[in-house]
Amino acid sequence: MANPEFEVTAVADGDAQRLDKAHRQCPSAVALGSAEELIARDDVEAVVIATPVATHFPLACNALDAGKHVLVEKPMCATIEEGEELIELAASKGVTLMVDHTYLFTGAVQMLRGLCQSGEIGRISYYDSMRVNLGLFQPDVNVMWDLAPHDLSIMDYLLDEEPVDLEVSGYCHVNPGVPDITYLTLHFPSDMVAHFNLSWMSPVKVRRTAIGGSEKMVVWDDLNPEEKVKIYSSGIEFQPEEERRQIMPGYRIGDVLSPRVSQLEALQGVVSHFAAVIGGRETSIMDGERGLRVVRILERAQKVLDQRLPEIADLRDGRV
Amino acid sequence: MANPEFEVTAVADGDAQRLDKAHRQCPSAVALGSAEELIARDDVEAVVIATPVATHFPLACNALDAGKHVLVEKPMCATIEEGEELIELAASKGVTLMVDHTYLFTGAVQMLRGLCQSGEIGRISYYDSMRVNLGLFQPDVNVMWDLAPHDLSIMDYLLDEEPVDLEVSGYCHVNPGVPDITYLTLHFPSDMVAHFNLSWMSPVKVRRTAIGGSEKMVVWDDLNPEEKVKIYSSGIEFQPEEERRQIMPGYRIGDVLSPRVSQLEALQGVVSHFAAVIGGRETSIMDGERGLRVVRILERAQKVLDQRLPEIADLRDGRV
Amino acid sequence: MANPEFEVTAVADGDAQRLDKAHRQCPSAVALGSAEELIARDDVEAVVIATPVATHFPLACNALDAGKHVLVEKPMCATIEEGEELIELAASKGVTLMVDHTYLFTGAVQMLRGLCQSGEIGRISYYDSMRVNLGLFQPDVNVMWDLAPHDLSIMDYLLDEEPVDLEVSGYCHVNPGVPDITYLTLHFPSDMVAHFNLSWMSPVKVRRTAIGGSEKMVVWDDLNPEEKVKIYSSGIEFQPEEERRQIMPGYRIGDVLSPRVSQLEALQGVVSHFAAVIGGRETSIMDGERGLRVVRILERAQKVLDQRLPEIADLRDGRV
Amino acid sequence: MANPEFEVTAVADGDAQRLDKAHRQCPSAVALGSAEELIARDDVEAVVIATPVATHFPLACNALDAGKHVLVEKPMCATIEEGEELIELAASKGVTLMVDHTYLFTGAVQMLRGLCQSGEIGRISYYDSMRVNLGLFQPDVNVMWDLAPHDLSIMDYLLDEEPVDLEVSGYCHVNPGVPDITYLTLHFPSDMVAHFNLSWMSPVKVRRTAIGGSEKMVVWDDLNPEEKVKIYSSGIEFQPEEERRQIMPGYRIGDVLSPRVSQLEALQGVVSHFAAVIGGRETSIMDGERGLRVVRILERAQKVLDQRLPEIADLRDGRV
Repeated sequence: MANPEFEVTAVADGDAQRLDKAHRQCPSAVALGSAEELIARDDVEAVVIATPVATHFPLACNALDAGKHVLVEKPMCATIEEGEELIELAASKGVTLMVDHTYLFTGAVQMLRGLCQSGEIGRISYYDSMRVNLGLFQPDVNVMWDLAPHDLSIMDYLLDEEPVDLEVSGYCHVNPGVPDITYLTLHFPSDMVAHFNLSWMSPVKVRRTAIGGSEKMVVWDDLNPEEKVKIYSSGIEFQPEEERRQIMPGYRIGDVLSPRVSQLEALQGVVSHFAAVIGGRETSIMDGERGLRVVRILERAQKVLDQRLPEIADLRDGRV
Repeated sequence: MANPEFEVTAVADGDAQRLDKAHRQCPSAVALGSAEELIARDDVEAVVIATPVATHFPLACNALDAGKHVLVEKPMCATIEEGEELIELAASKGVTLMVDHTYLFTGAVQMLRGLCQSGEIGRISYYDSMRVNLGLFQPDVNVMWDLAPHDLSIMDYLLDEEPVDLEVSGYCHVNPGVPDITYLTLHFPSDMVAHFNLSWMSPVKVRRTAIGGSEKMVVWDDLNPEEKVKIYSSGIEFQPEEERRQIMPGYRIGDVLSPRVSQLEALQGVVSHFAAVIGGRETSIMDGERGLRVVRILERAQKVLDQRLPEIADLRDGRV
Repeated sequence: MANPEFEVTAVADGDAQRLDKAHRQCPSAVALGSAEELIARDDVEAVVIATPVATHFPLACNALDAGKHVLVEKPMCATIEEGEELIELAASKGVTLMVDHTYLFTGAVQMLRGLCQSGEIGRISYYDSMRVNLGLFQPDVNVMWDLAPHDLSIMDYLLDEEPVDLEVSGYCHVNPGVPDITYLTLHFPSDMVAHFNLSWMSPVKVRRTAIGGSEKMVVWDDLNPEEKVKIYSSGIEFQPEEERRQIMPGYRIGDVLSPRVSQLEALQGVVSHFAAVIGGRETSIMDGERGLRVVRILERAQKVLDQRLPEIADLRDGRV
Repeated sequence: MANPEFEVTAVADGDAQRLDKAHRQCPSAVALGSAEELIARDDVEAVVIATPVATHFPLACNALDAGKHVLVEKPMCATIEEGEELIELAASKGVTLMVDHTYLFTGAVQMLRGLCQSGEIGRISYYDSMRVNLGLFQPDVNVMWDLAPHDLSIMDYLLDEEPVDLEVSGYCHVNPGVPDITYLTLHFPSDMVAHFNLSWMSPVKVRRTAIGGSEKMVVWDDLNPEEKVKIYSSGIEFQPEEERRQIMPGYRIGDVLSPRVSQLEALQGVVSHFAAVIGGRETSIMDGERGLRVVRILERAQKVLDQRLPEIADLRDGRV
């Protein structure tokens, strides 16, 4: 993560062992026992926040308030309200607020963005993601808050559209109240439906996203080192609504292209972008607004989960 | 499908071309222009119904009423009411009613049944199926009625449990009112949650079912000719509910076994089973009750779809 | 294999059981106990020979001599001499002699032929084939005579070139004198080297051919139903010989294209081609000359094997 | 490669840029412009030689002669004579000579060693390796000297057997006299035949080794992160030689097991082993003898190549 535009001045961690580890990676920086000390320093211009989600808001607030630029890990914060406040605060202080949606700087997502934005794949009909593995259970977040921010930020970057409605469900096998499997479906103003299969309970790791367009369909398998992105010259002939009912649609099945995906160093890209945005040379592709749009979906989905899971539990236990 | 216990006496089809094709496969049978004629014949003891879903009920009714044994294609019928009537009719006439859930006779499903019923994979926590392809749009059914009967009959056979609640959603890209993508989630009295990703819009064909147990996890990839079933000695240590909250669960990651799956001729198995059930030598594993349980979930899910899809369309069009 | 241009008049087999099986497939044909009877019939114009290799020559001779057109299974015959005699005989009798190199009529080989002949993949540097499986040991041939005819006829069709030299080796694990593993390397007048890894001893079936060109490289995996042929826009910059020594060559690593391969019915293609060649409407792509070129390599390789294997055995046993 | 038992005292490189890079990784070490200076230092007890092959011998000689322990990159040296001299020198000086055959310390090779040595896979009939990629052409070695040392050292470690004879061939597409494709076949006193397909010309990287035993067969695919090693319960029933001829052998096709392969840090393992061998706590599994056995095969194969390639070239150019 070394970047010529930044010098690591200080590192802070309340935990001595973690602090020591961080310090060994940046031996020339000052090691501090609290974030507050770090934020208070005059020689600190920009702060990177990599802490549990619940602390993102207070730490980012402090830092922004002290006039520091902030790069915060995903998800940006825990609620919509927090997100709106952070955006406003950054604006009023004239500093940069950025969320580390690292995937946006991978070669694969950059390629997908090109395919979607250029119109090459046509009108998008679905976005289908499977992100499952034998999870690392997180102490402070459920599987949706852990995994979905990746998908939601990518989808938002590709398609620039917000959902009008959603369904979400799941189950808490290990910790009550903390779903370890979640299925999320989003409906968009356009023809698009998006689906996310999120799990910490799969023995096989899967990172597969399919995007269906009227012209082409794309499958991104992030674990396939040789052919990450495949573009299928297959499609469904969309018909005008009045004619649809009458006949069966036609399919085109065609070639498959696996374009060479450049091996960008995504994290390096994020750091360079942060510098460029602070310096006014680039407009952020992962600013507070995008961070907020992700949190907005998560909060909305969480509310449904909070209502549905007890309902289902009652039905399961025969209480209804 | 030749079977020494059956002789094909007659074939019937209202369509001359299809009738001719069927007749050429069974040249010694009588070719008839209508099912009614076939059912009316004294030399017909058992009837196989392979017609559009909407006709299953009237045809099966006629045949059962005439005292014929019936093997009907999946799904058994279009409504719960129809299913209940067929079961009752078969019982009152003392004849066999069977639904052709062909998959149950594949080597893979037989193996999965053994794994689930023996307790080898432990307490089941999830059942996750992806059944997608560049569809053959059906004139009379949506993607759920087309594809889900396979999954639902298999799951029912493996686990013998009925859901207490469900979520379902989807989208109609091609024909209004006929979803071509459907996501279905079922909740069971036990710990299990089941999820089905069903699509006619995928450029890649996927037939993948994952079953998670407390002891082992299984992935069945029906398109992998070499290693159809993989058994993962991985699991999650379930903890008593009172202790769950406190600590992170432990994972075991272990070996993967791809047992040799026998290459059963599934259709041949169905026909032999039909003969054995008629002859009183076997109890049916695909009787009217199982057929009805599948239809029960489909009808329930369809009701939700019928309500949800217009709601979502209204939101999408800004009418709400 | 039904073809409107042929009527199956007679089938013959010395073995009653096999004859019965063949007869059931062609019930309208006469069933005969010997090939001689069949060849002697006036109502037989063309003969298909599907018998052990050693009998190809005498049977084809008889048939050609009787003025019948002949389609013989691969390999055409057991020696170069036999092959030359058959070609001469067919020519003198003015009838068609064709070898059933079925693969040539698959969509994949047709596509490869186009890629090689059009110059799209550039100057060919290597042809590398792996054709291994848990074999069906043949009573009358070794693994090379069993499997290599496929590869050799395909390569000959693609590249129209005959080797100037070869190496070959192997081992006989099961039957002494009958290699069940063979490695064959051919050297061509052009830059090309060809290699064949042939085995009846592999637990995994592999059918993989890689063809390297100066412009593109192609991998044909015949067992991959979705992406049989992959074209790699990768290559090595060939340099004029005088400049070669000095610097490292440059690589281009590029996109991968899996073109849609048409699902030709290869056997149907062979039969139609046979009819068209007899009728003078097509020039044969699998005539006696091609059959002979395959046998020429096999016989040459066999001679080396016949000398090498005992040499190695002697060294192994310490007799040398 | 940090190891508590070693302290990096000095680094040396004749090239200033490379020396600088090495120095930055070990900032506390002395940076020297020549190996000679390094070897001459009293505070150096052990030397690691990572230089072009041609320099291995003189550098290792110097170091051993100065009483230093030596760990040299593979291949140990360029000729059998050099290897024998190094072994003798190390013995006479009482110091450790070790060759860095890193693969031996991977989890996969350790597992394969167990399978072979325990007799679990039975009597070995073949060892078949494909090690191909779009090469990094090496200035000083051909593809065989570059890639085969990996395979040869692994095979030697697994099977402890030396070949009685070999065939080898290849082609020089890029640099005359430097084969970029090589096929090597080795014959062993036991039933085993070993084959190596080595190429710098493949657009797809393949690292696949198959080992066939009378009881089980194993396929090691080093690029498959999930299932590196697969054990097939398939085999061929070996028959006593006198009975072999008469009947076809029987096959067993069985389950496939992908055991969990431990994720050893191979390089760390080599360094620890070096320390343990120096300290007399372990016997080396990659000592000079093993290094020499690898060089012995390479030199023998090179001699054949040196004779064969011009022969083939002459035939190709019509000079013979």
